[in-house]
Amino acid sequence: MVNPRLLPGAPTSRGLAFDLIRSQGPISRVELAERTGLTQATMSNVVRQLMVDGLVVEAGRRESTGGKPRTLLSIDPRARFALGVQLGADAVTVVLTDLGGTMVGRLRTRGVYGEAPDAAVARIAAVVADFLVGLGVPSERVAGLGLVTPGPIDLEHGSIHGAPPLEAWAGFPLVSAVHHATGLPVVLDNDATAAAIGEFWGGSVADSAAHCTVYYGAGIGAGIVLDGVVFRGASSNAGELGQVTTRAPGPFLANTTVEKLAGPVSVALKARAAVAAGREAGFALTGLDDPYADFSVVATAAVHGDPLALELIRDSAEHLAAAVVSIANVLDLDSVVLAGPNLAIAGALYLEAVRRRVDEDFFAQAAHGVSVELSAYVADAAAVGGAALVLQREIASRSAGSPASAPSAPSAPPEAP
Amino acid sequence: MVNPRLLPGAPTSRGLAFDLIRSQGPISRVELAERTGLTQATMSNVVRQLMVDGLVVEAGRRESTGGKPRTLLSIDPRARFALGVQLGADAVTVVLTDLGGTMVGRLRTRGVYGEAPDAAVARIAAVVADFLVGLGVPSERVAGLGLVTPGPIDLEHGSIHGAPPLEAWAGFPLVSAVHHATGLPVVLDNDATAAAIGEFWGGSVADSAAHCTVYYGAGIGAGIVLDGVVFRGASSNAGELGQVTTRAPGPFLANTTVEKLAGPVSVALKARAAVAAGREAGFALTGLDDPYADFSVVATAAVHGDPLALELIRDSAEHLAAAVVSIANVLDLDSVVLAGPNLAIAGALYLEAVRRRVDEDFFAQAAHGVSVELSAYVADAAAVGGAALVLQREIASRSAGSPASAPSAPSAPPEAP
Repeated sequence: MVNPRLLPGAPTSRGLAFDLIRSQGPISRVELAERTGLTQATMSNVVRQLMVDGLVVEAGRRESTGGKPRTLLSIDPRARFALGVQLGADAVTVVLTDLGGTMVGRLRTRGVYGEAPDAAVARIAAVVADFLVGLGVPSERVAGLGLVTPGPIDLEHGSIHGAPPLEAWAGFPLVSAVHHATGLPVVLDNDATAAAIGEFWGGSVADSAAHCTVYYGAGIGAGIVLDGVVFRGASSNAGELGQVTTRAPGPFLANTTVEKLAGPVSVALKARAAVAAGREAGFALTGLDDPYADFSVVATAAVHGDPLALELIRDSAEHLAAAVVSIANVLDLDSVVLAGPNLAIAGALYLEAVRRRVDEDFFAQAAHGVSVELSAYVADAAAVGGAALVLQREIASRSAGSPASAPSAPSAPPEAP
Repeated sequence: MVNPRLLPGAPTSRGLAFDLIRSQGPISRVELAERTGLTQATMSNVVRQLMVDGLVVEAGRRESTGGKPRTLLSIDPRARFALGVQLGADAVTVVLTDLGGTMVGRLRTRGVYGEAPDAAVARIAAVVADFLVGLGVPSERVAGLGLVTPGPIDLEHGSIHGAPPLEAWAGFPLVSAVHHATGLPVVLDNDATAAAIGEFWGGSVADSAAHCTVYYGAGIGAGIVLDGVVFRGASSNAGELGQVTTRAPGPFLANTTVEKLAGPVSVALKARAAVAAGREAGFALTGLDDPYADFSVVATAAVHGDPLALELIRDSAEHLAAAVVSIANVLDLDSVVLAGPNLAIAGALYLEAVRRRVDEDFFAQAAHGVSVELSAYVADAAAVGGAALVLQREIASRSAGSPASAPSAPSAPPEAP
């Protein structure tokens, strides 16, 4: 039996077959039946429908021992494309991936901080339209747009709760606005959750029983996948790793959070304070009211070995590492991926700290290790994950020809029963 | 449709029917069918088998509108009993519950600290035998013994990893030793997980989508139940809330854990240090090498308003509250129960602190609240949960007469698919 975890939450016959063809193809129907445990008749039906939908194509024949040659199947990676749009205060990232999850285009534009939601949506829709024209991808092959934002989100209403710095977006009908502006089916998810789904779609953590993608973006989130199923909690707001709370003794650190100790804003503020206090610094802060820009300056200087910058980044990395150890101990994780735009520069320093702390402090290490890796798409992991959300839904639920043109209800991978 | 979450991990027709009869009975077969969504024919078969097994009995008739009177069904609470044994360094608790989860007997004996595992098992088996004789319960009605210990445990081998202070128990064949010493089927689980299962069996948190029972025993653990299914992690070691880790600035608090900040041992050590430093204290520490005894002294003094004791307990409670907020934010919890022997005295002080911090700092409170309660069996919650483990297995899997006499493989509630 094949591991049914490759598609989080969608271990349908169709999903299993597609994923095996994608990851193991070219492969024959007989092998597919053997590896999924389905009958050959069922598998033939599933494959027929995947071919009718244009997702799978025949790709030659292979001699079999003592029988007639077997026809091999591959996916057609250009049969569908999906957009992923990462809506951030500091930047908006747009990616297009093909059906195999390979990124075929990427664009980064300014963030929505300070912009009215309706104006921002209109601007992003124009950017997306130009992007598709530039890539020359026929619009009928674009299965939809996966929109990812910092949490907390309201999946039921297709909106976000508008945590700082996106207060203005609270209650804005995000999914329907983006649908109307782009004409595409839209799915919405949390950036960290989408990034985790992207890691599963990409196959890097397909065997994990308890996985967390730590997302170091504007804040610090976590996408949690348990036994191959996305875990969302009571109101789809699980994974708020930045809201892991500490009460240290003394008045100054009472009720602080991981985000305040380890987040990029805290690094920027500490850098400003250190420079203002006359500490020697081999970097020049921007002087702008943009802590993320200053964080990037510090991260770059740390990578080049500036002592003050290294001290600041390592302090942040140690706090993040403690939070990863915490969630690993609470969830008995076997796999962690680090992702997020603010790990694009100094990700290796964070990776080193997290690996070391997990090696030292993971509670159940007598039982098993915890793999800790940087995402293959560190900065774009959430946007790539948004595209994976669309592809996953396309594979799991569709059964006829062309991509849907109707708006979708805000949807998400199936939950645990 | 009835909520299928009452029996964690066991939403079988049989389990659903039994649980409805237990929680809603006396109830008719027709109502059972309506509320489970099963056909009347299926429900009749399920009920017949439950009656053959002696678990369910007829309990009178009720007039129905326009039809013949309907026969009502109840569980027979005395049809089966289950033992729960909580193996602790500081104390061993033995409880007997009936089929309805009601505690019918309880006994507390000295802990196993410093005792060789085989000697401890022989002593406990003798205690259990006397206990059953004293209660006058026929041994053939005892379905088994649920053994609970502090984690981490090795469910596969029926042993524990022997975290301090139970180092001597690492690798000891606990399940088979207890089975051979008592003659009873034995199931093993983590104390915190068992306590959470006990809360579900008792029905207090039956509707929770994301629940955590925080277990304040020798250490600090958490039993996690997500969508009605026990969550165990990659190696059955999830829930190590005490191993939530903080790196506070400065050398002294580097790499500390919730257990070191909030656990009963830390309270005892701080009390000793305060007294040694000449702080005024309205309590007398034991002078014994037993931090749990000193913790109880401090907890008692705090309940009586001693300022130093209150300061120490409140400090511990605030750290525990921060950890509960952390796990609530990571898992988007809707329900928390506080349990454990070291909450028996000052549980109300801990409850107050946790409720206040959750009200202040729970991240998704725009979406929903988090219920926070003390367990109905605070001190004995793990032992009662051990008995619930046995009953749950009895209901979910058995289909014939008398309780099994063969040893069980170490078993546990089914996991998420």
